[in-house]
Amino acid sequence: MYTLLNGMRVVECASFIAAPSCALHLLQLGADVIRIDPVGGGPDFRRWPVSGDGRSFYWEGLNKGKRSIAIDLSRPEGRALAVDIITAQGDGAGLFVTNFPKRGFLSHNALRERRPDLITVRVMGWNDGSQALDYTVNAALGVPYMTGSDANGDAPVNHVLPAWDLLTGSYAAFALLAAERFRRQTGQGQEVLVPLSDVALASVGHMGQIAEVLTGGDRPRQGNDLFGAFGRDFTTADGRRVMVVAVTARQWSGLVKALGLGAEIAGIEASYGVSFAQDEGVRFTHRDALFPLFERAIAACALADLQEAFDANAVCWSQYRTLHAALREDPHFSTDRDLFTALDHPSGYRYPAPGAMASFGGAARQPVERAPRLGEHTDEVLAEVLALSSARIGELHDAGLVAGPEKR
Amino acid sequence: MYTLLNGMRVVECASFIAAPSCALHLLQLGADVIRIDPVGGGPDFRRWPVSGDGRSFYWEGLNKGKRSIAIDLSRPEGRALAVDIITAQGDGAGLFVTNFPKRGFLSHNALRERRPDLITVRVMGWNDGSQALDYTVNAALGVPYMTGSDANGDAPVNHVLPAWDLLTGSYAAFALLAAERFRRQTGQGQEVLVPLSDVALASVGHMGQIAEVLTGGDRPRQGNDLFGAFGRDFTTADGRRVMVVAVTARQWSGLVKALGLGAEIAGIEASYGVSFAQDEGVRFTHRDALFPLFERAIAACALADLQEAFDANAVCWSQYRTLHAALREDPHFSTDRDLFTALDHPSGYRYPAPGAMASFGGAARQPVERAPRLGEHTDEVLAEVLALSSARIGELHDAGLVAGPEKR
Repeated sequence: MYTLLNGMRVVECASFIAAPSCALHLLQLGADVIRIDPVGGGPDFRRWPVSGDGRSFYWEGLNKGKRSIAIDLSRPEGRALAVDIITAQGDGAGLFVTNFPKRGFLSHNALRERRPDLITVRVMGWNDGSQALDYTVNAALGVPYMTGSDANGDAPVNHVLPAWDLLTGSYAAFALLAAERFRRQTGQGQEVLVPLSDVALASVGHMGQIAEVLTGGDRPRQGNDLFGAFGRDFTTADGRRVMVVAVTARQWSGLVKALGLGAEIAGIEASYGVSFAQDEGVRFTHRDALFPLFERAIAACALADLQEAFDANAVCWSQYRTLHAALREDPHFSTDRDLFTALDHPSGYRYPAPGAMASFGGAARQPVERAPRLGEHTDEVLAEVLALSSARIGELHDAGLVAGPEKR
Repeated sequence: MYTLLNGMRVVECASFIAAPSCALHLLQLGADVIRIDPVGGGPDFRRWPVSGDGRSFYWEGLNKGKRSIAIDLSRPEGRALAVDIITAQGDGAGLFVTNFPKRGFLSHNALRERRPDLITVRVMGWNDGSQALDYTVNAALGVPYMTGSDANGDAPVNHVLPAWDLLTGSYAAFALLAAERFRRQTGQGQEVLVPLSDVALASVGHMGQIAEVLTGGDRPRQGNDLFGAFGRDFTTADGRRVMVVAVTARQWSGLVKALGLGAEIAGIEASYGVSFAQDEGVRFTHRDALFPLFERAIAACALADLQEAFDANAVCWSQYRTLHAALREDPHFSTDRDLFTALDHPSGYRYPAPGAMASFGGAARQPVERAPRLGEHTDEVLAEVLALSSARIGELHDAGLVAGPEKR
């Protein structure tokens, strides 16, 4: 948590990863985020992973530090209340993050009638407004057919990481700041559309893959081999798996030296008339000749010896671990750092929660705050943002239009 | 391309995906980006995918629209020239994006002596400054041990998509705008560190996975099954693969209706005493009972019939395709839209290149510009940013300290 964006107030009406993580990124740099949820919780309120008694670790991870107001969004009066909050006045306000459909009561055109300088950042699935999730976009784009090896036959291999969701969330936060900067210069608000499918398609284009397939056809599966340079998993004498990469000349020469393979490599270079140090691509095209050498050399070393040789020669490598082992054993992934705050969460569990993913030298890190209980800030938001009286807030509760904090 | 960030000038001294994509995102919203490369190109200049004659589609994808100056960074005079450009005066300038080491001639402390309000955004590998790439961070964090199925035995399955690189790039662009906003309020510059390893670790934390493994241990591999709800790949009667997901109640009821499985599902619900519509989690815990029903129902349908039934019932699904087929066959991934501009690229190939991944309602999209040839803007940048005379620029060329555009 930082205070760089103090004074910004963002209203979120959203579910799942992309839009909620957009608001989370803003919050962790100092923005105030008010999350509007339907009474009883949105479609992400019980999303896995969950605790033994069904409390969502996912929800409380993505909503850390937000203020929660629970409104009956199925009724016109409840929807009107949500619109009031989204379009409330205030210099740093008028910032809205959602994954609701373009049309409907949260359409930008409807909202801007209430606040003309409103900025709406709308995360979408497909760019035409039809529904999609990370996993359906990824399958349609071709990534699962590039993943895995012949062991999978012709079956696709899904990615477990919802990369497009995460990327869409952080790009949406970037887009919101750009629109807010523009608003401070011109006074103009606008709607910003961030479709998962455009984020995915543009990303593969940025990496050259559209040019690749349009000029040369689809890339065959490579298993765990790094495309276009040297890299793969190997197994050590004591049965540990390591990922070893050599993209740069320095990484390559360090690797060859660490394993004492200089003479063998020179022999292969001579027989093929190539220089592996000068051309990363031939490390890939001749990988069938190279890999057996490295397999044998690494299989002859215990991990501890390999680590010493690798680190002495600036090899780019890592040990494969499970996530649990990574947290316990890899000091890079220690949660005992200022990136994390150990917190008691709404689930009843105490565990370390991460703050902003960047470190800002010009500002001190603040502790992370836990996610709210659903509706925990209903009364506070109504009083503060809409200046409603206690009597009026009581009426809204009596009418079932809003709900206070869930009881445990 | 948009003009929202017109007037911002970013200097980039970086390689690979994360830092160059950060500057690309800024450029595609209107910033001027000057990329400083060593004469002959940086370590990413020949990165795959490449054309038949070895021109990098990757490099020209990640550097679209940037101005390129080639400097001999191995000599003190060349390094001084780079520092001059990075710290040059100008209201919208003083923004620096790099993946160079924290120490050395591009350290923030050295640079800020020349321009105290400089903002440096530094992408790192490991958070301690040691080298890492997307693939080594991902292996260390445990993702490859969650990916794939028993067909892979106990072998890890690497992701082919460098998700952490992409995410780090867009988060770095977000962080830069936050720091620039802060600078306009306070006059203060700062260094912002964005380590791949922190981005990866915080992301899995935000999604609840740190809580998950600390309270319950590692997640076993799920093959292509969506964790915690209903989702998997299925094969149609005509041998097409589809990804089908039901996270929400509406997606689930639409899917059951589309396949006419209501009676069978009710039977399973009765025998287990669960409601699949109400609890997404039991769709996962009882997937061994559910999947065979869906396999049979989908295997009985040709894709065209399935598509009609799915779309009529708002099912969340997609067809698995290869990237090349996706570009040809899926209208969502058409490059004949304003997201793309067909361009003649430095590689000599003409193909469509993507612009900004979001659509801004308040600004018109501008066409995408091709990547520069290496050193294409050397003289222009020296004259414009450093106000050097033609004579002085000639001296720099004669001394081999800078290079003009490469000859084809």
